[in-house]
Amino acid sequence: MPRAPEAGSDVHRERHRAVLETAARLICEQGYEAASVQDIADACGLTKAGLYYYIRSKEDLLLEIMSYGMDIFEERVLLPVLGIADPVERLRACMEKNIHLVTEQRSKEVTIILHEHETLTGAARQQINARKKRYVHFLEASFAEAMREGRIRAVEPRVAAFAFLGMVLWIYKWFRPDGKIPADRLAAEMLDLFFGGLVTAPATPTAAPVAPAAPGERLRRRGQARAAATAGRPARRPPPRRRAQATRQAALEALGAGRGGGGRPGGSA
Amino acid sequence: MPRAPEAGSDVHRERHRAVLETAARLICEQGYEAASVQDIADACGLTKAGLYYYIRSKEDLLLEIMSYGMDIFEERVLLPVLGIADPVERLRACMEKNIHLVTEQRSKEVTIILHEHETLTGAARQQINARKKRYVHFLEASFAEAMREGRIRAVEPRVAAFAFLGMVLWIYKWFRPDGKIPADRLAAEMLDLFFGGLVTAPATPTAAPVAPAAPGERLRRRGQARAAATAGRPARRPPPRRRAQATRQAALEALGAGRGGGGRPGGSA
Repeated sequence: MPRAPEAGSDVHRERHRAVLETAARLICEQGYEAASVQDIADACGLTKAGLYYYIRSKEDLLLEIMSYGMDIFEERVLLPVLGIADPVERLRACMEKNIHLVTEQRSKEVTIILHEHETLTGAARQQINARKKRYVHFLEASFAEAMREGRIRAVEPRVAAFAFLGMVLWIYKWFRPDGKIPADRLAAEMLDLFFGGLVTAPATPTAAPVAPAAPGERLRRRGQARAAATAGRPARRPPPRRRAQATRQAALEALGAGRGGGGRPGGSA
Repeated sequence: MPRAPEAGSDVHRERHRAVLETAARLICEQGYEAASVQDIADACGLTKAGLYYYIRSKEDLLLEIMSYGMDIFEERVLLPVLGIADPVERLRACMEKNIHLVTEQRSKEVTIILHEHETLTGAARQQINARKKRYVHFLEASFAEAMREGRIRAVEPRVAAFAFLGMVLWIYKWFRPDGKIPADRLAAEMLDLFFGGLVTAPATPTAAPVAPAAPGERLRRRGQARAAATAGRPARRPPPRRRAQATRQAALEALGAGRGGGGRPGGSA
């Protein structure tokens, strides 16, 4: 039987990492209760005794996986951007690195467990939540700094921080590495969308906004239209309003002709 | 014993809804395996036989909860906005309504189960996924329409759709109804952030962007600065660049002085 690698050595760290990633995959597939220590040992190619050289107990496993998820996140995303002086460039670099982390298949299940499992209790839960909160505070402080320096519009830093997080962390729910949008392009698009905004041309006068725009928003929209004009790109006017009926029909078609398979639960009694 | 309400009646629908919401809360608290039919019946104030008047079986419960989640979503968010002719106003109204839905405490656990539980298999899973996909396609089609009409910049509609969803659906993970940001303000801030963008002033020449901005992005940034100036609000220049060291220190402080509680899993052997 091969000797176990020395604790603290590179080999030990690599194997520990592999154990946590394998355990995370099994827990995502089977659920925490259903995945036994023997299943995890088998999947790792270890005996049960060999597995316990890397994990303290099954009870600690979720905490270990989440701590490992926070370790990778801090090493790969947070620490490299802390030294960037400009707050907007710091936030942009942070979003880019975080997107690259969540599009990697290797640590996918670790990320899922970090953000979806609520089964930790007491001190373990506090420990993980404190590390997550530090990231939120870092984002909030960076948005607030960017506002003070006149680099971004007045926003609620907390909402900006959670909007940033939501866009980035939802990615693991839909991104496929073999899909039509590679990770690099996804990162570029999201950065552009979040920091650059979307709307260029105002609505036609007949299309009243659903909620009245705040004065600052109206000013900004006018400003953008003027900017587009002075920059040599005339603000394109939407074509004359089509009949609402035709658009509704198009929207319904985009949504799929019928509501199909989605039976109402009311029919279950 | 009171007579059970007639299937299809308003009373029946209301009670069925209450059963699904209570079951969702128990499943979120205890896990699907741990929450027994008896627990759910007790929490609903029903006998087991009474509970089975509303649910087909425990096995179908997750599907019923998810179908109910999609029903509420379609009734409250999707159907009311399909008839809005202008694609940007349609998307804005959709985001606003979806934010209001996910900030409501009543259906919180239903939303969590809809978006986090992966335990459905086969036809049930396909049924729910098809309804979720229809929402994604509706968003993609609306973004594409807004692009064709010159109402928004060129974006990848799929990325825009998932960025929209991520921002909105992540809310249930952090929003507290008794927190400092009420739902109305959250909705206004997110709409402004997503559709209006963030950056107003360019970085100072010394702060090189992390990734070179695309030509369109540079043009837009220049245009926005010019717009701010012509609109009577001079584009605020950031103050002279502070020493990177000082900023790094501030960022580290914002992040929290020490890394505290977050023990490395490497210490577990």
